[in-house]
Amino acid sequence: MRRAITQADRVRHLTSPNPWVGAILRTRDGREFAGATEPPPGRHAEQVVLDAARAGGADVTGATVWVTLEPCDHHGRTAPCTEALIGAGVARVVFAVGDPDPRVDGRGAARLRAAGIAVTEGVCTDRATDQLRPYLTHRRTGRPFVIMKLAASLDGRIAAADGSSRWVTGDAARAEAHRLRAQCDAVLVGAGTVRTDDPELTVRAVAGRDPLRVVLGRAPAGARVHPCLELSGPLPGVLDDLGRRGVLQLLVEGGSRVAHDFHRAGLVDRYLMHLAPALFGGDDAAPLFRGSGARSIDEVWRGRIAGVRHLGGDLVVELEKGVA
Amino acid sequence: MRRAITQADRVRHLTSPNPWVGAILRTRDGREFAGATEPPPGRHAEQVVLDAARAGGADVTGATVWVTLEPCDHHGRTAPCTEALIGAGVARVVFAVGDPDPRVDGRGAARLRAAGIAVTEGVCTDRATDQLRPYLTHRRTGRPFVIMKLAASLDGRIAAADGSSRWVTGDAARAEAHRLRAQCDAVLVGAGTVRTDDPELTVRAVAGRDPLRVVLGRAPAGARVHPCLELSGPLPGVLDDLGRRGVLQLLVEGGSRVAHDFHRAGLVDRYLMHLAPALFGGDDAAPLFRGSGARSIDEVWRGRIAGVRHLGGDLVVELEKGVA
Repeated sequence: MRRAITQADRVRHLTSPNPWVGAILRTRDGREFAGATEPPPGRHAEQVVLDAARAGGADVTGATVWVTLEPCDHHGRTAPCTEALIGAGVARVVFAVGDPDPRVDGRGAARLRAAGIAVTEGVCTDRATDQLRPYLTHRRTGRPFVIMKLAASLDGRIAAADGSSRWVTGDAARAEAHRLRAQCDAVLVGAGTVRTDDPELTVRAVAGRDPLRVVLGRAPAGARVHPCLELSGPLPGVLDDLGRRGVLQLLVEGGSRVAHDFHRAGLVDRYLMHLAPALFGGDDAAPLFRGSGARSIDEVWRGRIAGVRHLGGDLVVELEKGVA
Repeated sequence: MRRAITQADRVRHLTSPNPWVGAILRTRDGREFAGATEPPPGRHAEQVVLDAARAGGADVTGATVWVTLEPCDHHGRTAPCTEALIGAGVARVVFAVGDPDPRVDGRGAARLRAAGIAVTEGVCTDRATDQLRPYLTHRRTGRPFVIMKLAASLDGRIAAADGSSRWVTGDAARAEAHRLRAQCDAVLVGAGTVRTDDPELTVRAVAGRDPLRVVLGRAPAGARVHPCLELSGPLPGVLDDLGRRGVLQLLVEGGSRVAHDFHRAGLVDRYLMHLAPALFGGDDAAPLFRGSGARSIDEVWRGRIAGVRHLGGDLVVELEKGVA
């Protein structure tokens, strides 16, 4: 299963809005074939390994298939993987995570079992769940997994009292920012940020596809963010809308009012904080969050530090919901 | 020399206002003796290893002595180490760092050389300099090495809009805070912090001596910080005063106005930031620094991250002056 997860890693975020799934097939005589889901309208991982085995002249009857997600049991762009596995005569299917998609949700496993295939679930579940989190969030809630990127000094400030804010960020930070965009289906900023910074929000410093660009409010004509999707209204509705459009992972890039609104509404799944070894040293510099915050200490949002790493001279802290 | 540095580590901060120095003596026939400076009014490291060798029945004539700091050449509480080394007939002295104390400052080395002893300096200088930094700062500038301790959420806030600020800090953080106090000769807070928090500023959670307690302004009668030293006036003068009192290392513990004033005056040598995985999420929470900060981005203080570690669920970031 670990090798199936590694296969899935190769196509992580590339198969959206489908899940990035990896699979390993082992024939009765011990030959092994690996594969992963292809970008739409390509094949699912199960079909990829079955095809690979047959192309290699292997007999798949009685084979075992390890797959990171429960096989689908519905007709979408492709035929159900359950049918392909049953038709191939495999003996055993092992999967890591059940698929919460209402069209699957246990039906895949049930269908395989009804056909006499031995099914084992719950192997390496934590790792696979982590890998598939945007997909699982989307299928469970109808909304994208929301990553908020924040960049500030170590005293939590983003611009000086006079409004100046040009950070000297290195190539490493720039490449990382673009890599993150390429991993998201959509990038969202407020109209204020469009007016102030006129960002392009495209993927340039690394190879990767451009995300859907989303502006909260109206982007002025001529802004570099065009073509973009302009949305307004309450944020839960905005996320529902993006979910319906197949956005599994959304990156919120600012500004400080949008950051405040998403945070206070509890709609952020992961905070990515780039902290520069710098201090503004006063209370008149622009804050990370613009608007009213926790009224008392009991109301303070508490998460857990999911990761810390150095990037250039900066520190990148990943903050997630969860037990403190 | 590395072993001499390890010896010095055992007495780090315990010999103040004298430097914590380690030494190794090797006799001509290869016997080795280790030692470190004793707390005042004890012996210096050189005398300690000479005595240890003699007590062990060793002949120190022609021996080599490694010592982390240039041997002193003046009469203080003890006789000059140069005289002890010359009198013992050692052949060679190796030291890591020259002593900037105006009463030494090259005279120690010169005196030994004049007596025919081979002197080598500059071995393991970086490590020894780092180890002796508070002492070296004090002897060069007449002022203590200043550590500022800051505790905030990851968005740089220390209290909610209503003023509530009780952090749930674990035993690990408490023990660390007291250990840090024990390593400092003095701990300083503003009178506002005394009025608001009524801190004791003593060492309780770990073994160690209490620091001199310093209040900027007047501590109210009955405050737990008594007995304390009350100082006022411009901060450089305050540091000069503490330097004259033999304070090698000063810990500034708050509050946000004192933090602002020390920071903006450029008087902080090391920032120790405890960052909790929490977000106040607004611009109405109390900031780390109270007062006017950098007016433009060009004025922002930029340092370097000297260390990062986890402490309980928090992150501790050490920030120092230096190339970004």
